[in-house]
Amino acid sequence: MEENSKQYAETAIPQVEAETVDLEERDPESNSLTRPLLKRNRTLSSSPLAIVGTKVSHIESLDYEINENDLFKHDWRSRSRAQVLQYVFLKWTLACLVGLLTGIIATLINLAVENIAGYKLLAVVAYIEQERYITGLIYFTAVNFLLTSVAAVLCVFFAPTAAGPGIPEIKAYLNGVDTPDMFGATTLIVKIIGSIGAVSAGLDLGKEGPLVHIGSCIASLLGQGGPDNHRIKWRWLRYFNNDRDRRDLITCGASSGVCAAFRAPVGGVLFALEEVATWWRSALLWRTFFSTAVVVVVLRAFIEICNNGQCGLFGRGGLIMFDVSNVSVRYRAMDIIPVVLIGIIGGLLGSLYNHVLHKVLRLYNLINQKGKIHKLLLSLFVSIFTSVCLYGLPFLASCTPCDNSLPDSACPTNGRSGNYKQFNCPKGYYNDLATLLLTTNDDAVRNIFSTNTAGEYNPVSLLIFFAIYCILGLITFGIAVPSGLFLPIILMGSAYGRLLGLAMKSYTNIDQGLYAVLGAASLMAGSMRMTVSLCVIFLELTNNLLLLPITMMVLLIAKTVGDSFNPSIYEIILELKGLPFLDANPEPWMRNLTVAELADAKPPVVTLHGVEKVSRVVEVLKNTTHNGFPVVDDGVVPPVGLPIEATELHGLILRTHLVQVLKKKWFLSEKRRTEEWEVREKFTSVDLAEREGTIEEVVVTRDEMDMYIDLHPLTNTTPYTVVESMSVAKAMVLFRAVGLRHMLIVPKYEAAGVPPIVGILTRQDLRAHNILSAFPHLARSKSREKGH
Amino acid sequence: MEENSKQYAETAIPQVEAETVDLEERDPESNSLTRPLLKRNRTLSSSPLAIVGTKVSHIESLDYEINENDLFKHDWRSRSRAQVLQYVFLKWTLACLVGLLTGIIATLINLAVENIAGYKLLAVVAYIEQERYITGLIYFTAVNFLLTSVAAVLCVFFAPTAAGPGIPEIKAYLNGVDTPDMFGATTLIVKIIGSIGAVSAGLDLGKEGPLVHIGSCIASLLGQGGPDNHRIKWRWLRYFNNDRDRRDLITCGASSGVCAAFRAPVGGVLFALEEVATWWRSALLWRTFFSTAVVVVVLRAFIEICNNGQCGLFGRGGLIMFDVSNVSVRYRAMDIIPVVLIGIIGGLLGSLYNHVLHKVLRLYNLINQKGKIHKLLLSLFVSIFTSVCLYGLPFLASCTPCDNSLPDSACPTNGRSGNYKQFNCPKGYYNDLATLLLTTNDDAVRNIFSTNTAGEYNPVSLLIFFAIYCILGLITFGIAVPSGLFLPIILMGSAYGRLLGLAMKSYTNIDQGLYAVLGAASLMAGSMRMTVSLCVIFLELTNNLLLLPITMMVLLIAKTVGDSFNPSIYEIILELKGLPFLDANPEPWMRNLTVAELADAKPPVVTLHGVEKVSRVVEVLKNTTHNGFPVVDDGVVPPVGLPIEATELHGLILRTHLVQVLKKKWFLSEKRRTEEWEVREKFTSVDLAEREGTIEEVVVTRDEMDMYIDLHPLTNTTPYTVVESMSVAKAMVLFRAVGLRHMLIVPKYEAAGVPPIVGILTRQDLRAHNILSAFPHLARSKSREKGH
Repeated sequence: MEENSKQYAETAIPQVEAETVDLEERDPESNSLTRPLLKRNRTLSSSPLAIVGTKVSHIESLDYEINENDLFKHDWRSRSRAQVLQYVFLKWTLACLVGLLTGIIATLINLAVENIAGYKLLAVVAYIEQERYITGLIYFTAVNFLLTSVAAVLCVFFAPTAAGPGIPEIKAYLNGVDTPDMFGATTLIVKIIGSIGAVSAGLDLGKEGPLVHIGSCIASLLGQGGPDNHRIKWRWLRYFNNDRDRRDLITCGASSGVCAAFRAPVGGVLFALEEVATWWRSALLWRTFFSTAVVVVVLRAFIEICNNGQCGLFGRGGLIMFDVSNVSVRYRAMDIIPVVLIGIIGGLLGSLYNHVLHKVLRLYNLINQKGKIHKLLLSLFVSIFTSVCLYGLPFLASCTPCDNSLPDSACPTNGRSGNYKQFNCPKGYYNDLATLLLTTNDDAVRNIFSTNTAGEYNPVSLLIFFAIYCILGLITFGIAVPSGLFLPIILMGSAYGRLLGLAMKSYTNIDQGLYAVLGAASLMAGSMRMTVSLCVIFLELTNNLLLLPITMMVLLIAKTVGDSFNPSIYEIILELKGLPFLDANPEPWMRNLTVAELADAKPPVVTLHGVEKVSRVVEVLKNTTHNGFPVVDDGVVPPVGLPIEATELHGLILRTHLVQVLKKKWFLSEKRRTEEWEVREKFTSVDLAEREGTIEEVVVTRDEMDMYIDLHPLTNTTPYTVVESMSVAKAMVLFRAVGLRHMLIVPKYEAAGVPPIVGILTRQDLRAHNILSAFPHLARSKSREKGH
Repeated sequence: MEENSKQYAETAIPQVEAETVDLEERDPESNSLTRPLLKRNRTLSSSPLAIVGTKVSHIESLDYEINENDLFKHDWRSRSRAQVLQYVFLKWTLACLVGLLTGIIATLINLAVENIAGYKLLAVVAYIEQERYITGLIYFTAVNFLLTSVAAVLCVFFAPTAAGPGIPEIKAYLNGVDTPDMFGATTLIVKIIGSIGAVSAGLDLGKEGPLVHIGSCIASLLGQGGPDNHRIKWRWLRYFNNDRDRRDLITCGASSGVCAAFRAPVGGVLFALEEVATWWRSALLWRTFFSTAVVVVVLRAFIEICNNGQCGLFGRGGLIMFDVSNVSVRYRAMDIIPVVLIGIIGGLLGSLYNHVLHKVLRLYNLINQKGKIHKLLLSLFVSIFTSVCLYGLPFLASCTPCDNSLPDSACPTNGRSGNYKQFNCPKGYYNDLATLLLTTNDDAVRNIFSTNTAGEYNPVSLLIFFAIYCILGLITFGIAVPSGLFLPIILMGSAYGRLLGLAMKSYTNIDQGLYAVLGAASLMAGSMRMTVSLCVIFLELTNNLLLLPITMMVLLIAKTVGDSFNPSIYEIILELKGLPFLDANPEPWMRNLTVAELADAKPPVVTLHGVEKVSRVVEVLKNTTHNGFPVVDDGVVPPVGLPIEATELHGLILRTHLVQVLKKKWFLSEKRRTEEWEVREKFTSVDLAEREGTIEEVVVTRDEMDMYIDLHPLTNTTPYTVVESMSVAKAMVLFRAVGLRHMLIVPKYEAAGVPPIVGILTRQDLRAHNILSAFPHLARSKSREKGH
């Protein structure tokens, strides 16, 4: 999905610009209602556009804040103990279901991949044994072409959001950004089938990222999220219809996905915590852990079944994928030098990979802009190139005689897996490059991680392997199929690690296989910039606890080196897509700006009265794109003992709730405040959780236009606010810490005539790039004061 | 330190009450200045008292909020790139130093304990070999008595805060509560020596909790925290003098402590994350991980040295303490039943333990109130009781013949460690109870975790072991020595696990040692209610990754069962001590109350003018105990285009800064606002970081009283605020999420005559118990609406 990315911060690509202009023409902000009093050269632009799948879409924020209006309070007060218990029980049941379904789907994907790729490889080996090399090549390429085209056609024509890993979008969702069509049923199905196709086709991509996305899709569907047309709406799920609960469930889904991908339950939890989630609490830690525990139980159960040979070519593997526990690790003080070296090189290579991948994605973007056929052709070209390389390159390697200490059945092999592939070699010899290339990616990692096999790989073969996987890793990621980043990076890293191990052979006594593991870890840290979660994932993948201290060192060094060059790969993708992700740390220059200055650069805030005319509500909804409106009452006598009239800030009302009122035609013939029972007769809290309907669908008659609406019972009376003198830095901390969608700015002055609301800030207003474009002088100080 | 705990929420113990009354007599809140306008039956009491060490102390909150006043902004703007780099470098250097020092001290403690306890046990074994049983008893008891008295005397007379584990106080510190004398140099030294004494004395306590406290003390001292008299003040540390940086460093210290205690680097990070820390961010995860990595490197280096036999009786152990990796784990579906059973029983026993320990601590409290000698006598009594039990009980066990398959050197043994102790048995026989009791606690765990030793322990012996450790675990924790909770619970849990394993012997093929491990895990989860961190700690302790799925199951079940009875043991201790810890989740009934109602129940807020008379500042400081005062300007013309006069909320000024102004006598002869350079001539941002000095120390002459102070440059212009209609629930979420000390309440009305500030809330005001005592009607709805 990165293929049509756009650098949000830089000059836009022509087609995108055209669409933006188009949107701006229709942009109701330019309407007279909201025109600023003073003409400014620059205003704070906050058009929330992002690249989703193939097209540029409007992005909305999620409502993570508790909307405390009268209906919510009543609903919450009237819940019986049984209903509360039902809700708690539901939360855990759904967490369990997420784990269960993710585990089952992950197993099915694994089964499908191992069988499809397995039978394909067996057929190829049969052709080679008959020395029908050209037929083998054609067969290999054709099957891969077919598998890739299934994946690509599905992604291009049915669910463009299913392409790529999906992890950046999940990260954005948990940050509060609702990427459209990201977690629907279609996306889920395309992702599953596409992932099977792409991985079996031998493309240089993993199923790990897609599994994380699959877990999140399942979670979102169970939490009644996703696009309206395919949403699950069950009565027993009715308490589970808000963004906050869905957020928690999607966190569980993401952890389950990682757990299913790497069979690493603790690693999954930590991955969600370190990389994906924005908000976190202890209770969530526990529920996520429960989900991953369920996944592990499911995986174990399937492995038990498959061990009895009922899964075709699947069956090996066990609970730990790349086991290196059979080597004992004893360090000497001198081993610190290669370890540091691996870390530094991993950091350098990782940041270089990020840099080049960024360029490639921008290039792919240009190609993909040309249309769906171009996207498809790009994918198919990559498939053919990959097939030819994987098949052809092993012919470059010379045959190596088998080690005599090995049994005849182990070397050479012609079966599905095996560490010493015969390929084109005579009996008693093996082709080390075929061992690495002509196999599934999982087996390739297993082979290169293999321990106590010091002399197995020729340096030249390793170099070819490293080079080809660098190229494939760069050109494959951006194509229109579901693709994970983990495995390509592990393959690249293990190759360079093992090469370094060969170079250091005379110097240390660390096993060659461990060098491969450390190399993979360092490149992961250098590119993805995770530490604790990667450490635990590697621990759980390799089943060797004694490796822990050096893995930690390598990860820390690689991350530090990488961070000094560029941001992590996920941040680069987020930026490319233009998703309005809010970072944890405000920029230093944000301390020099107050929220009032920020609000001044925006069109003035549009407020509504507590009891408002229908015509005004309709006008405001039609002429603005705001999603929240402050509700203000005039002429109120405050209880301070003085006979004065004041204006009162009553709260904030959401656009969706106004639309609901108009759709349900809850109008009053006279201007009066309603009683609590009146609103409860018309609305339930479940109604308010709906996001459906737009103002365009609402039909209001001329008579109704003159009637009134009492907004009080639907207004969130407890919005989070800041005083106008608040610095943007601290406002942003608040915005992110409590997960806001709208933040009201109240005046610091107290006097008659001062409006009770100065402005309103949203996610877009707090993004560094948007602020800098409105306040260019800050950009100048920025360069000087960088660092924190 | 729990020995003098007090249930804050219930009737106070006489002596404490006396002190409280005494404090209230001196309480300046009863002064006319702050007397409420309306007489209320109940007001929101927020006297911040807690039990610290032996005495009741006033507790202050920490300033985790960034104090954005003119000086801070200037200081921050004027920092050069080099200074910023220096600051970043310093942060990492200190994190490294914390790990380094914690690792070294942990090793030294281990060395000391193993040697002292080792030589003691060798001497006892020698007496027993000579059948001089009474002499052995006397020697054993006397040495233990001596060691205990060293620990207890130090704790009672020099650093009462060093008693107990210290983890609850660290938890409170990271939540924003500054427990006095908790992280000083004296505490550190007493904790180290006391811990060595108490553990070598064979008391039923661990060095794990104290190590966490030691790590935090080191961190606090390096971060220039701690009591003023022993604080480290180095010039190169001057940028590192605020509560926020100290908080991060203490988090590193706590992780390092856990890591050093269990040799579990990832477990340490997760423990800090799950149990100890209140605020967390990705960057901190990384730094904490770095600290624990350093600890592991230090530990490994020492183990390498000790393996060469240079550490006396220390030397075994390796990086993993209780290794059970030599058993292969293969589950059948039926194994689920014992696993679930262990979890349920663990949860029940854990919550029962919490319940009984709570009662015991309250009883000890009464004893300890009587004076220091009583505290000392209690500790010494427990020591004698423990010694007699440990020595005497093995005589009850019958001798078991050695298994013939074992070599002669392995059974029976008379050395320092060993799994088959001869004790009083004839040659060829061993005493299984002596193997468990007459050894160090670490060795006892190692022996009971030992795998592939199915028939080693007699059920009767295990039952005796379990019973005596239940009793010891309850009576030992509250005495005045540094004591950790982990090891007692592990001992109890492993005994019951192994008992259950014996009972299930015919049913499953899970190893007896694994039953012990699972039992220990279940009791930990049942009492401490952690999941992920315990799981990883057990993983790293036992070095068996295949145990992971069942450990997860056991932990989840035990925690769920335990949670349905009572809170975790740390929460119980926090409550007993009266530390104002803010929970993550607001109580449901807090939605029914607004912050304005809460503010109404407090004395009216005391505000200062932007340019204020010295006499008024002195009066306010002397007559209130508030630590922050809103600064309000009258007669300001707001820039709204209207010729009106308004009152302006300028911000919040801290008491410490007012005291600094008075001490430095920065007075103005006329009423005017100052220029920025004027304040910079007098104050640096380092000055403002000081918390020293009280109003009583300040001498102001009569002439000076008539002068003025310009408070503007020292006022935090960006305090976090809420509107008066905000619900207490959401206000509390904000308070905790951004780590506040003071939260200002602004009015929702806008009119002349409305004060620009409605009230001020602190941590104490938001505590459920305090609110309920002022609003008793909420307590009634509470019982109905419990649950979340």
